[in-house]
Amino acid sequence: MALDKVLATIDKNLDGSLERLFALMRIESVSTDPAFAGNCRDAAAWLANELSALGFDAAVRDTKGHPMVVAHSKTQGEGPHVLFYGHYDVQPADPVALWETPAFEPQLKTVAGRKVIVGRGSADDKGQLMTFIEAVRAFVEAEAKAPLRITIMLEGEEETGSPSLMPFLEANRNELKADVALVCDTDMWNDTTPAITTMLRGLLLEEVVIKAADRDLHSGLFGGAAINPIRVLGKIIASIHDGEGRIAVPGFYDCAGELDPEIKAQWKSLDFSEAKFLGEIGLSVPAGEDGRHVLEQLWSRPTCDVNGIIGGYTGTGSKTVIPAQASAKFSFRLVGKQNPEAIRDAFRAFVRKQLPADCEAEFLPHGASPALQLPLDSLYLKKAREALAAEWGTPAVLKGSGGSIPIVGNFKRDLGMDSLLIGFGVDDDRIHSPNEKYNLSSFHKGARSWARLLHALRS
Amino acid sequence: MALDKVLATIDKNLDGSLERLFALMRIESVSTDPAFAGNCRDAAAWLANELSALGFDAAVRDTKGHPMVVAHSKTQGEGPHVLFYGHYDVQPADPVALWETPAFEPQLKTVAGRKVIVGRGSADDKGQLMTFIEAVRAFVEAEAKAPLRITIMLEGEEETGSPSLMPFLEANRNELKADVALVCDTDMWNDTTPAITTMLRGLLLEEVVIKAADRDLHSGLFGGAAINPIRVLGKIIASIHDGEGRIAVPGFYDCAGELDPEIKAQWKSLDFSEAKFLGEIGLSVPAGEDGRHVLEQLWSRPTCDVNGIIGGYTGTGSKTVIPAQASAKFSFRLVGKQNPEAIRDAFRAFVRKQLPADCEAEFLPHGASPALQLPLDSLYLKKAREALAAEWGTPAVLKGSGGSIPIVGNFKRDLGMDSLLIGFGVDDDRIHSPNEKYNLSSFHKGARSWARLLHALRS
Repeated sequence: MALDKVLATIDKNLDGSLERLFALMRIESVSTDPAFAGNCRDAAAWLANELSALGFDAAVRDTKGHPMVVAHSKTQGEGPHVLFYGHYDVQPADPVALWETPAFEPQLKTVAGRKVIVGRGSADDKGQLMTFIEAVRAFVEAEAKAPLRITIMLEGEEETGSPSLMPFLEANRNELKADVALVCDTDMWNDTTPAITTMLRGLLLEEVVIKAADRDLHSGLFGGAAINPIRVLGKIIASIHDGEGRIAVPGFYDCAGELDPEIKAQWKSLDFSEAKFLGEIGLSVPAGEDGRHVLEQLWSRPTCDVNGIIGGYTGTGSKTVIPAQASAKFSFRLVGKQNPEAIRDAFRAFVRKQLPADCEAEFLPHGASPALQLPLDSLYLKKAREALAAEWGTPAVLKGSGGSIPIVGNFKRDLGMDSLLIGFGVDDDRIHSPNEKYNLSSFHKGARSWARLLHALRS
Repeated sequence: MALDKVLATIDKNLDGSLERLFALMRIESVSTDPAFAGNCRDAAAWLANELSALGFDAAVRDTKGHPMVVAHSKTQGEGPHVLFYGHYDVQPADPVALWETPAFEPQLKTVAGRKVIVGRGSADDKGQLMTFIEAVRAFVEAEAKAPLRITIMLEGEEETGSPSLMPFLEANRNELKADVALVCDTDMWNDTTPAITTMLRGLLLEEVVIKAADRDLHSGLFGGAAINPIRVLGKIIASIHDGEGRIAVPGFYDCAGELDPEIKAQWKSLDFSEAKFLGEIGLSVPAGEDGRHVLEQLWSRPTCDVNGIIGGYTGTGSKTVIPAQASAKFSFRLVGKQNPEAIRDAFRAFVRKQLPADCEAEFLPHGASPALQLPLDSLYLKKAREALAAEWGTPAVLKGSGGSIPIVGNFKRDLGMDSLLIGFGVDDDRIHSPNEKYNLSSFHKGARSWARLLHALRS
């Protein structure tokens, strides 16, 4: 069978694959420090060269920051056109002294019975992106060409907020637009259970300034008769959640939807320890909606948090002032089909309704993005689940992400593409920290997973 | 009659009294600016010299800052021993350009039909303290001696927070302790209605820090499951006042007492415009306890205000953080016999009771002082009311002060003395501002008022 041959090629090539990964990891492509700009370019050139060797039209493309690598396979017309995304830039090695072996001298070690690849970028994201390239290499070796029409885009600014990404997508929309994006920068559920991130919460940011008297007042001379905007803001904050932890803004849940029963059952069955999760940050009791599993609270339920508040005197000691205004920064995490702008309007109405006499509210919008969700009936998702289950011998967890992953929003909004977020990192990879590692099994079986998926997509 | 002779002397001396006040006002005794330290000492010396000429044992007494003037009459054994307090220091003239005539060149002008003394310190406090000295002068001229045992203490640091006052009182307790203090630094009700300030609210300051997780959290990755201390603080703030504007801390009103019906009736009958009072600060509706007159809300009812609040990200834009802590500075204005430390304990218990799981509160005390109230049946108050009614032809308003007047607390705590707060300023005196003025009628009838009171006290 064609697939068996490709998988066997991956297995046979493992030593060579590791050598290539190590070569890439030795390039100190730290994006945040201008001193390493040349190294970033070296990493991009190294990758473009590898992809050219695989028969891709590959090039290092300039941006205002570090360059992009874009490579197109010459294969046409078999199955969908896929866009693969990864990033070649890494975090600085600091604090250098805490590394057991030098950050940019990658090693294969055996730690607690596991073989692991140690070094900066092993998991984030060089090891991950190389799983895909090594899968493609196996097709090229076994079949003389890439299995599909594949575009590979590798970024060099992910660790610095991707400032050049959106302009690059806009300028090259037609070239980069594909049928589906494959993004390899996320985690498995654990060492042996794969995962696909299919739900990303949206985000609505809104600042509220409550204004009362036309100046700061002496709280002795006016206290008792003058309304205090901090008190008004406190009441608004207190009113946002009801007694069951639900958000009381009218209509808030109208388009939130409910989690698919299949996923809900899967999450409940996972070996997730609420006590451990909360205990690691000094907490013990989930603070969200009553009766919801913590994973639901984090991944599939909308929230409101106050991210900042300020008003009156905040220095040392005391000052007897009734301030003229007080303000708070609110953020809503959104799910399902919640419309950020409709929620913004509803929240503003909710705030205005609670304003007592003599108070007004000023609203400062700070951005909004809807939730992203890959439908359970997506054909791409179905094939990815089958591929991962076949490789790992256990079904993939369909995860959510409570925070946003900007690239996915960009792909959706700018290029009209859904993304399959599949990665092989695990919790204890120590990304961004000293002694970053990547399981050898993640690297090896990650490549095999991509091979299975690419094979499935072309059929 | 002896009093008539004294009053006639005041009337006859008016031109001379004004000349002396102008001489004092020409001395630029600005306490906040070290460049004027010599002028402050000059003002003190000028006053000591005047009081010596009236037969007082008067001296300029050094402190770590500007000197005190202390003068003792040689009269003994007739009526109570009174301590008079005023201050000779003034605010800077800035902004100088806004003065119609130079700040330190006092003038008598006719403005809108009123004769007024214009210049820095005319009302705050040189004009006021000179009403008392001119009254004493009239007794000395008419009767060859002061009418009572009188100690006069004139401070030079009132405008800078009186840093030397408490040490001076402590070091000279036996010398300064009298039967009652006469403090001349407050206002009348209006141009023609005198007032005595008999109620001063107390103050309790308490900062609360709410702590939750052991670090700041990403609101995407933890929002929904992690408790947000700003939300907890908001609920506490919202719970302090009930639906009628009353403070919900258990036991809070136990010792607050109720306003004497006579004073309550007087306040109701005053030509006080709630709309004007609130309108001047951009408000229209009193925010205190339902069913209470604004003057009650300000003078005789306890309050709670939040003077400051801070937590999370407060810079420009947004940051998706759930902060580890949030804090607020609370102040309570106290009345009647409310015990500040008992209220502090009750408030802390009230806060602790509302803490959800995983949250703790840290409390930072910032000082406390009880309310001060001159009993309606005080003999000194009775005589003061009679004296003022006789001079002005209308009863004195018994005012409260919503804020503290530190000197009165010092006199009570350190010297065990009540204070009669009688002053002749009016609302539009523009103290601390350009074109400060003092009504000539305040100056003239103020001196006559003191003469009447001193006469009454000795009988």
